[in-house]
Amino acid sequence: MPSDPDVPADPDCILCGIVAGTIPSYKIYEDDHVLSFLDIGPLARGHVLLIPKAHYVTLDTMPDDLAADCARVLPSLARAVMTVSGRPDFNILQNNGAPAGQIVNHVHFHIIPRREGDSLGYRWPAGKLADDEARRLQQAFTGQLR
Amino acid sequence: MPSDPDVPADPDCILCGIVAGTIPSYKIYEDDHVLSFLDIGPLARGHVLLIPKAHYVTLDTMPDDLAADCARVLPSLARAVMTVSGRPDFNILQNNGAPAGQIVNHVHFHIIPRREGDSLGYRWPAGKLADDEARRLQQAFTGQLR
Repeated sequence: MPSDPDVPADPDCILCGIVAGTIPSYKIYEDDHVLSFLDIGPLARGHVLLIPKAHYVTLDTMPDDLAADCARVLPSLARAVMTVSGRPDFNILQNNGAPAGQIVNHVHFHIIPRREGDSLGYRWPAGKLADDEARRLQQAFTGQLR
Repeated sequence: MPSDPDVPADPDCILCGIVAGTIPSYKIYEDDHVLSFLDIGPLARGHVLLIPKAHYVTLDTMPDDLAADCARVLPSLARAVMTVSGRPDFNILQNNGAPAGQIVNHVHFHIIPRREGDSLGYRWPAGKLADDEARRLQQAFTGQLR
């Protein structure tokens, strides 16, 4: 299938290669905007990836509608992961930037099946938010978000 | 603001209380479908939550379009988190079920700023996917996904 010239692609990107079919993958779902396939370095049985076909390195650079196209698939994909893995619990994880654990520089959402007592999950050293700091942050955010 | 009778709500849910305004929060963004506010147990400065206003416990039970409504906001919200936190790197995390780390039973997306050497992030004991197992999984998934 020739690549669509209107869809941003990076010839050096492994996920763009998977989209184009020049790099093999175990695809499980595809529509005009997104592709889902098995993670070949799974954290659990049934760990899958969902990607936009278009090449964007991080989520903050994606068009809003393309982010929506990705998430529109997540409920049904999550149900499939639950059924296939036999696990009703799961994480959705999407990493942006090397310090955030991003290895492959094309936006990808992980769906990771979980069970009690596995060795997975996010580290959670929660802090506390003081009221004065919260108000400063709130003001800074609302200045950014219209 | 009276609650919309067409939007599912749970009177015992703290996030539904935040949506209704009966429980205080530091709101930073709101539209017809979603709400974003500061996490008061932050993992990092600028850690925020994004929720659908309607009450759904886990992502797999959400309407597809509502999942899309949530994600449509993520790119601009992520850019605001980057600006306010001063960190260009971040995780998007959404936990489903207690074994997956879900504490509050109303769908919520975390946006968590990251920096090199912080004590955060997802544990990553990656496995390897054998070809025969991959083919079995692929077949099981495609049976679930039309």
